[in-house]
Amino acid sequence: MALAYDGAIQRLIDAFAHLPGIGPKGAQRIAFYLLNASDEESQTLIDAITEVKEKIRFCDVCGNVCETSPCPICVDPRRDHSVICVVEEPKDVMSIERTREYRGLYHVLGGVINPMANVQPSDLNIAKLIERLKDSEVTEVILALNPNVEGEATTSFLSQLLSQTDIKVTRLASGLPVGGDLEYADEITLGRALAGRRAV
Amino acid sequence: MALAYDGAIQRLIDAFAHLPGIGPKGAQRIAFYLLNASDEESQTLIDAITEVKEKIRFCDVCGNVCETSPCPICVDPRRDHSVICVVEEPKDVMSIERTREYRGLYHVLGGVINPMANVQPSDLNIAKLIERLKDSEVTEVILALNPNVEGEATTSFLSQLLSQTDIKVTRLASGLPVGGDLEYADEITLGRALAGRRAV
Repeated sequence: MALAYDGAIQRLIDAFAHLPGIGPKGAQRIAFYLLNASDEESQTLIDAITEVKEKIRFCDVCGNVCETSPCPICVDPRRDHSVICVVEEPKDVMSIERTREYRGLYHVLGGVINPMANVQPSDLNIAKLIERLKDSEVTEVILALNPNVEGEATTSFLSQLLSQTDIKVTRLASGLPVGGDLEYADEITLGRALAGRRAV
Repeated sequence: MALAYDGAIQRLIDAFAHLPGIGPKGAQRIAFYLLNASDEESQTLIDAITEVKEKIRFCDVCGNVCETSPCPICVDPRRDHSVICVVEEPKDVMSIERTREYRGLYHVLGGVINPMANVQPSDLNIAKLIERLKDSEVTEVILALNPNVEGEATTSFLSQLLSQTDIKVTRLASGLPVGGDLEYADEITLGRALAGRRAV
C-alpha cells in the first residue's frame, strides 16, 4: 500500500516543505495547486527563482541585495551620506524605507552575533562597516537591530567598537508600539517606555 | 524612494505570494531564504516543479494523479475491485490510504458542486464514474466527500443519481472525532453522533 505520493509529487512536496514557514500540509496544498495550475503560472515561478539566483548580488559597499553594485541607495546623491543605519537583513532596509522617515545610507550585517548558532562577529559584515567609516563624511551610525537578546548583544558589541571613534552612535527608541495597550505591554517594554519618556 | 524591492526580488515575492497559504510576509521570507540558499537547493525546487508539470497526469480511469495511466491503484489485482470510494481531490485518496482500512478502488471528482464558484456537476468527473459503473463488478460506492455544505450537496446529488442503479451507496460516518470532547463538539456533529449511535 503506497503511503507516500508518487515519486515526482512527493519530491515537490519535500522541496516546498524545506522552505521557511511551510509545513508538510502547506507543502502538499501548494504541490496540488501547482499540479492544477497553468504551465504559464508554474513557469513564472521557475523564472522568478532563476532570475533572482542569476541577477541578485550583494552590494559591495553596504551588503544590501541589489542588481547592480554599488546599489542604487549607496550611489544616490540625494540621500544623506553622513548617516549610516546598521540593520540585520536586507528586508529590514525595506521596513525602514517604508517609514519614509530616513534619508541616509544603510549597512546590512547579514545577521547578528549568536553564540548558540555559532555566529561570531567575524561572520558578519562588520569589518566592511569599520572600513567604510574611515576617512568618510559619516557623523552618525544608527544601530537598528531587532530588540531581542541577539540584537541587543550585537548592539552592545558595535557601540563599544565605535566608541573609539568620533562618530555619534544612536539606537532606535524602545517603547510602546503605536496602537498598543499599556495593559498588554510586557514589563521590559513598559520599563523602557518609562525610562525613555519625553516632554510633550 | 524605492518602496518595493528591486525588480527580480519583487517578482519572486509576487510569484510565491500567489501560491495558496502564503501571504506577502511569508513570500518575502521565502524569497530572502532562496536568495541565501545554495544553487543546489534552488535548483532542486525548480527541478521538482518542472518534473511534476512534465510527468504527472490524471488517471484515465479514476481521475487520480499518477505517472502512468491507468494508475497503480486501478490496475492492482490485490485490491477489491467491487468497491469504489468517491473523493473530492487526489489528496483525499492519500488520507484514506493512510488509514490502512480500505482496500477498494477510488474515483476522484476533482471538486464538489458549488454554485457560488460556478462549479456545476458537468464540471466534475461524474460522467466517467457512471461510465465506470456500467457493466462492472462494482457492488458498493462509498461517498467520502468533505462534511461541509458543498460536500453534502454533492453527496445528495450523487446518491440520487446512483439510486437508479442496483449499487449500494454508502457514506462516511459523522460523529465525534476520536480524542474529541463532548463539551466542544458543535450541535450538528453531536446530533449526528447521536443519530448514528451504535450498539456496544
